[in-house]
Amino acid sequence: MRPLLHPSIDDIRLAAILHALSDPVRAAIFAEIAGAACFQTCSAFASVGDRAIPKSSLSQHFKVLREAGLIRSERHGVELRNTSRCAEIDERFPGLIPAILSAHVRDAGRG
Amino acid sequence: MRPLLHPSIDDIRLAAILHALSDPVRAAIFAEIAGAACFQTCSAFASVGDRAIPKSSLSQHFKVLREAGLIRSERHGVELRNTSRCAEIDERFPGLIPAILSAHVRDAGRG
Repeated sequence: MRPLLHPSIDDIRLAAILHALSDPVRAAIFAEIAGAACFQTCSAFASVGDRAIPKSSLSQHFKVLREAGLIRSERHGVELRNTSRCAEIDERFPGLIPAILSAHVRDAGRG
Repeated sequence: MRPLLHPSIDDIRLAAILHALSDPVRAAIFAEIAGAACFQTCSAFASVGDRAIPKSSLSQHFKVLREAGLIRSERHGVELRNTSRCAEIDERFPGLIPAILSAHVRDAGRG
Protein backbone atom coordinates (compact mmCIF):
# COMPACT_ATOMS: atom_id res chain seq x y z
CA MET A 1 0.00 0.00 0.00
CA ARG A 2 1.49 3.31 -1.04
CA PRO A 3 2.21 5.81 1.73
CA LEU A 4 0.04 8.95 1.83
CA LEU A 5 2.14 12.06 1.18
CA HIS A 6 1.46 15.19 3.20
CA PRO A 7 3.71 18.21 2.68
CA SER A 8 5.00 19.89 5.82
CA ILE A 9 3.45 23.28 6.41
CA ASP A 10 6.60 25.06 5.21
CA ASP A 11 6.50 23.14 1.95
CA ILE A 12 2.93 24.14 1.15
CA ARG A 13 2.97 26.40 -1.91
CA LEU A 14 0.38 28.92 -2.99
CA ALA A 15 0.59 27.65 -6.57
CA ALA A 16 -0.38 24.12 -5.48
CA ILE A 17 -3.30 25.35 -3.36
CA LEU A 18 -4.68 27.50 -6.20
CA HIS A 19 -4.18 24.72 -8.73
CA ALA A 20 -5.96 22.19 -6.48
CA LEU A 21 -8.92 24.49 -5.90
CA SER A 22 -9.17 25.69 -9.52
CA ASP A 23 -11.11 22.53 -10.32
CA PRO A 24 -14.76 23.08 -9.33
CA VAL A 25 -15.25 19.44 -8.23
CA ARG A 26 -12.17 19.56 -6.00
CA ALA A 27 -13.25 22.93 -4.62
CA ALA A 28 -16.66 21.43 -3.76
CA ILE A 29 -15.05 18.40 -2.08
CA PHE A 30 -12.68 20.61 -0.12
CA ALA A 31 -15.49 22.99 0.92
CA GLU A 32 -17.39 20.01 2.28
CA ILE A 33 -14.40 18.68 4.22
CA ALA A 34 -13.51 22.14 5.54
CA GLY A 35 -17.07 22.69 6.69
CA ALA A 36 -17.43 19.28 8.37
CA ALA A 37 -17.18 18.90 12.12
CA CYS A 38 -15.55 15.47 11.79
CA PHE A 39 -13.61 13.49 9.20
CA GLN A 40 -15.14 12.72 5.82
CA THR A 41 -14.52 9.42 4.04
CA CYS A 42 -13.79 9.51 0.32
CA SER A 43 -16.87 7.41 -0.41
CA ALA A 44 -19.03 10.21 1.01
CA PHE A 45 -18.26 12.02 -2.25
CA ALA A 46 -19.53 9.50 -4.78
CA SER A 47 -21.51 12.47 -6.04
CA VAL A 48 -20.87 16.20 -5.75
CA GLY A 49 -23.97 18.28 -6.25
CA ASP A 50 -25.94 16.28 -8.80
CA ARG A 51 -22.85 14.95 -10.56
CA ALA A 52 -21.68 11.36 -10.04
CA ILE A 53 -17.90 11.13 -9.67
CA PRO A 54 -16.17 7.92 -10.79
CA LYS A 55 -14.12 6.33 -8.02
CA SER A 56 -10.83 6.70 -9.91
CA SER A 57 -11.36 10.45 -10.44
CA LEU A 58 -12.34 10.77 -6.82
CA SER A 59 -9.13 9.25 -5.54
CA GLN A 60 -7.14 11.47 -7.91
CA HIS A 61 -8.97 14.55 -6.58
CA PHE A 62 -8.14 13.55 -2.99
CA LYS A 63 -4.51 13.00 -3.95
CA VAL A 64 -4.25 16.50 -5.46
CA LEU A 65 -5.90 18.07 -2.38
CA ARG A 66 -3.63 16.08 -0.06
CA GLU A 67 -0.40 16.83 -1.92
CA ALA A 68 -1.27 20.52 -2.06
CA GLY A 69 -1.47 20.40 1.75
CA LEU A 70 -5.19 21.15 1.91
CA ILE A 71 -6.31 17.94 3.59
CA ARG A 72 -4.91 15.21 5.80
CA SER A 73 -5.95 11.63 4.99
CA GLU A 74 -5.64 8.66 7.32
CA ARG A 75 -6.27 5.04 6.47
CA HIS A 76 -8.67 3.23 8.75
CA GLY A 77 -9.15 -0.29 7.39
CA VAL A 78 -10.44 0.10 3.85
CA GLU A 79 -11.53 3.68 4.23
CA LEU A 80 -9.64 6.94 4.01
CA ARG A 81 -10.62 9.55 6.57
CA ASN A 82 -10.05 13.14 5.51
CA THR A 83 -9.84 16.31 7.54
CA SER A 84 -8.94 19.80 6.37
CA ARG A 85 -5.65 21.51 7.28
CA CYS A 86 -7.32 24.95 7.32
CA ALA A 87 -5.93 25.91 10.72
CA GLU A 88 -2.33 25.15 9.69
CA ILE A 89 -2.70 26.90 6.34
CA ASP A 90 -4.19 29.92 8.03
CA GLU A 91 -0.94 30.42 9.93
CA ARG A 92 1.06 30.28 6.73
CA PHE A 93 -1.38 32.24 4.52
CA PRO A 94 -3.76 34.16 6.79
CA GLY A 95 -7.26 34.59 5.39
CA LEU A 96 -6.57 32.76 2.14
CA ILE A 97 -8.75 29.69 2.66
CA PRO A 98 -11.74 31.55 4.15
CA ALA A 99 -11.63 33.99 1.19
CA ILE A 100 -11.56 31.16 -1.35
CA LEU A 101 -14.33 29.22 0.42
CA SER A 102 -16.51 32.29 0.59
CA ALA A 103 -15.88 32.98 -3.12
CA HIS A 104 -16.73 29.34 -3.82
CA VAL A 105 -20.16 29.79 -2.19
CA ARG A 106 -20.81 32.97 -4.20
CA ASP A 107 -19.59 31.36 -7.42
CA ALA A 108 -21.75 28.26 -6.91
CA GLY A 109 -24.72 30.49 -6.16
CA ARG A 110 -24.60 32.01 -9.63
CA GLY A 111 -24.01 28.65 -11.30
CA MET B 1 -6.08 42.32 -35.29
CA ARG B 2 -7.94 40.00 -32.95
CA PRO B 3 -10.30 41.63 -30.48
CA LEU B 4 -9.31 41.48 -26.79
CA LEU B 5 -11.83 39.43 -24.82
CA HIS B 6 -12.86 40.61 -21.37
CA PRO B 7 -15.55 38.66 -19.49
CA SER B 8 -18.32 40.72 -17.92
CA ILE B 9 -18.15 40.77 -14.15
CA ASP B 10 -21.00 38.25 -13.87
CA ASP B 11 -19.16 35.84 -16.12
CA ILE B 12 -16.00 35.84 -14.01
CA ARG B 13 -15.57 32.39 -12.46
CA LEU B 14 -13.60 31.48 -9.39
CA ALA B 15 -12.12 28.46 -11.20
CA ALA B 16 -10.65 30.72 -13.91
CA ILE B 17 -9.19 33.16 -11.38
CA LEU B 18 -7.55 30.37 -9.36
CA HIS B 19 -6.26 28.67 -12.50
CA ALA B 20 -4.80 31.94 -13.80
CA LEU B 21 -3.04 32.70 -10.52
CA SER B 22 -1.84 29.12 -9.93
CA ASP B 23 1.07 29.81 -12.25
CA PRO B 24 3.79 31.63 -10.27
CA VAL B 25 4.86 33.77 -13.22
CA ARG B 26 1.28 34.89 -13.89
CA ALA B 27 0.78 35.54 -10.17
CA ALA B 28 3.91 37.72 -10.17
CA ILE B 29 2.76 39.64 -13.27
CA PHE B 30 -0.70 40.14 -11.78
CA ALA B 31 0.72 41.26 -8.41
CA GLU B 32 2.78 43.86 -10.25
CA ILE B 33 -0.21 45.15 -12.25
CA ALA B 34 -2.47 45.16 -9.18
CA GLY B 35 0.11 47.11 -7.19
CA ALA B 36 0.80 49.66 -9.92
CA ALA B 37 -0.64 53.14 -9.79
CA CYS B 38 -1.01 53.31 -13.56
CA PHE B 39 -1.21 50.92 -16.50
CA GLN B 40 1.61 48.46 -17.20
CA THR B 41 2.65 47.56 -20.71
CA CYS B 42 3.34 43.92 -21.51
CA SER B 43 6.91 44.70 -22.43
CA ALA B 44 7.52 45.87 -18.85
CA PHE B 45 7.51 42.15 -17.98
CA ALA B 46 10.26 40.90 -20.26
CA SER B 47 11.64 39.49 -17.03
CA VAL B 48 9.91 38.56 -13.80
CA GLY B 49 12.25 38.44 -10.82
CA ASP B 50 15.48 37.22 -12.38
CA ARG B 51 13.77 35.10 -15.00
CA ALA B 52 13.56 36.20 -18.63
CA ILE B 53 10.14 35.50 -20.13
CA PRO B 54 9.93 34.86 -23.90
CA LYS B 55 7.56 37.25 -25.66
CA SER B 56 5.24 34.46 -26.81
CA SER B 57 4.81 33.10 -23.26
CA LEU B 58 4.26 36.62 -22.02
CA SER B 59 1.40 37.28 -24.38
CA GLN B 60 -0.14 33.91 -23.45
CA HIS B 61 0.10 34.82 -19.74
CA PHE B 62 -1.63 38.14 -20.37
CA LYS B 63 -4.35 36.38 -22.36
CA VAL B 64 -5.04 33.96 -19.48
CA LEU B 65 -5.15 36.82 -16.94
CA ARG B 66 -7.42 38.86 -19.23
CA GLU B 67 -9.82 36.02 -20.02
CA ALA B 68 -10.07 35.12 -16.33
CA GLY B 69 -11.24 38.70 -15.76
CA LEU B 70 -8.22 39.72 -13.69
CA ILE B 71 -6.92 42.46 -15.97
CA ARG B 72 -8.17 44.82 -18.60
CA SER B 73 -5.92 45.35 -21.65
CA GLU B 74 -6.19 48.22 -24.12
CA ARG B 75 -4.28 48.63 -27.35
CA HIS B 76 -2.46 51.92 -27.78
CA GLY B 77 -0.55 51.75 -31.04
CA VAL B 78 1.78 48.78 -30.80
CA GLU B 79 1.57 48.47 -27.04
CA LEU B 80 -0.96 46.83 -24.78
CA ARG B 81 -1.75 48.74 -21.61
CA ASN B 82 -2.92 46.62 -18.70
CA THR B 83 -4.75 47.53 -15.53
CA SER B 84 -6.14 45.25 -12.86
CA ARG B 85 -9.87 44.66 -12.34
CA CYS B 86 -9.40 44.25 -8.56
CA ALA B 87 -12.15 46.71 -7.64
CA GLU B 88 -14.74 44.94 -9.80
CA ILE B 89 -13.69 41.47 -8.61
CA ASP B 90 -13.85 42.63 -5.02
CA GLU B 91 -17.56 43.29 -5.44
CA ARG B 92 -18.14 39.81 -6.82
CA PHE B 93 -15.73 37.95 -4.49
CA PRO B 94 -15.00 40.19 -1.49
CA GLY B 95 -11.51 39.79 -0.05
CA LEU B 96 -10.41 37.11 -2.52
CA ILE B 97 -7.79 39.06 -4.46
CA PRO B 98 -6.24 40.78 -1.41
CA ALA B 99 -5.95 37.35 0.31
CA ILE B 100 -4.27 35.79 -2.73
CA LEU B 101 -1.90 38.74 -3.22
CA SER B 102 -0.93 38.66 0.44
CA ALA B 103 -0.33 34.89 0.23
CA HIS B 104 1.74 35.51 -2.92
CA VAL B 105 4.03 37.86 -0.99
CA ARG B 106 4.43 35.32 1.84
CA ASP B 107 4.99 32.48 -0.61
CA ALA B 108 7.59 34.40 -2.60
CA GLY B 109 9.33 35.34 0.65
CA ARG B 110 10.05 31.72 1.48
CA GLY B 111 11.08 30.98 -2.11
